[in-house]
Amino acid sequence: MRIVLEYDGSGFEGFQRQKTARTVQREVESALSRMTGSAMTIAGAGRTDAGVHATGQVANFRLGREFPLERVMSALNRSLPPDIVCVASDEVSDEFHARHSAKSRTYVYTIRNSAEPHALDHRFVWHVAETLDVEAMAEAAGWAVGVHDFSAFGTPEKGCSPRRDLLQFRLERDAEMLRVTCQANAFLRHMARGLVGGLVEVGLMRREPEDFRRALEGGAVAPLFPVAPPNGLCLVNVEY
Amino acid sequence: MRIVLEYDGSGFEGFQRQKTARTVQREVESALSRMTGSAMTIAGAGRTDAGVHATGQVANFRLGREFPLERVMSALNRSLPPDIVCVASDEVSDEFHARHSAKSRTYVYTIRNSAEPHALDHRFVWHVAETLDVEAMAEAAGWAVGVHDFSAFGTPEKGCSPRRDLLQFRLERDAEMLRVTCQANAFLRHMARGLVGGLVEVGLMRREPEDFRRALEGGAVAPLFPVAPPNGLCLVNVEY
Repeated sequence: MRIVLEYDGSGFEGFQRQKTARTVQREVESALSRMTGSAMTIAGAGRTDAGVHATGQVANFRLGREFPLERVMSALNRSLPPDIVCVASDEVSDEFHARHSAKSRTYVYTIRNSAEPHALDHRFVWHVAETLDVEAMAEAAGWAVGVHDFSAFGTPEKGCSPRRDLLQFRLERDAEMLRVTCQANAFLRHMARGLVGGLVEVGLMRREPEDFRRALEGGAVAPLFPVAPPNGLCLVNVEY
Repeated sequence: MRIVLEYDGSGFEGFQRQKTARTVQREVESALSRMTGSAMTIAGAGRTDAGVHATGQVANFRLGREFPLERVMSALNRSLPPDIVCVASDEVSDEFHARHSAKSRTYVYTIRNSAEPHALDHRFVWHVAETLDVEAMAEAAGWAVGVHDFSAFGTPEKGCSPRRDLLQFRLERDAEMLRVTCQANAFLRHMARGLVGGLVEVGLMRREPEDFRRALEGGAVAPLFPVAPPNGLCLVNVEY
């Protein structure tokens, strides 16, 4: 069974199960266990950090034969806390694994670039008060697309390659809102926030686009630039 | 000095100062005191409940002569926590009092009427899963406009009249979102949520619009209908 999850990350210590912390995985596994009457574990596509949101997180699990498939989504939503919602569910083959089968992940990072912040979206937006040079940021973003060693922006798991294929990294400005879309085959730990943090350094003219380009040559240790805060980040889609 | 405040009410035990709880008034007074270096108290226009939001709460206070007026908003925002923002400030006469000078208050209540909830707006929206009969709700809402004894919907302060003048009470539907705008000269305690709760009972066909009309004849004790949860409510404006 595959499910798509939306969550407000501000009340969670991230996605992945931990011993005592409130995490998305723990809440979903508890809800599924209550719903089915047997202990359930799930595999998630992306291990979002504490405070990071999702509208398109994907997870899979094995459902006992006795549970009607068409009732999974609504039964799960009746059992989940209000900050997690199942937005889709479908049957998948036993070979499907939310993480290993994923071809890429897409995140959107939202910045509000205005003199004063807003209170109602403070959980979902990074407020940057000084004016950003969006053209310089777009130039830097262009350098990052493609296969690079992203060691300056994120941390690889032990013994794993720091090379990733960044498929999309683009900015859209709508009045004072700036949306950064970031798609890669996979992400190093903190890589999406590291890339956005680096772009903002360029936008604030603390660094040149050229510094950003050099950081993509590899060999550096993350974080080379200040890492963007988690609340602006949202996992919007996982591609299979 | 008059300020307009926006806040995400989900982290507060309401507006009004209490001994130990985290309230909006306490945070604003602390921020003003840090900013000016002397103990400050404010008067607010509306005593919003725990979990209720604002985009247009108004407060006033006396500012020592040494503080430059044009810097109040930005200085205050640097001192406030991220869930409260000052969105405007201006000088007012000594006679101005945010509560006593107010002619009316306007609240908006937001309902999502859909089979499944959303996670990202759960702090700002009441999710109602069963289909609402919006026409019946609009009929009931029409009865409520004008001067009535609102005892069935809210609680007056001791020794005070339960009569209020409801200037506006209207519904707008946009796809699955339902916005209820509610303006009155003043509100009894819990009155806005009581009115919306009553409307929803009508919309769910648990009560007739006629029951709602009868409740406006006065003499009942609130809550006659289930009270709508606080998170859907937002104080959007105070009129002077």
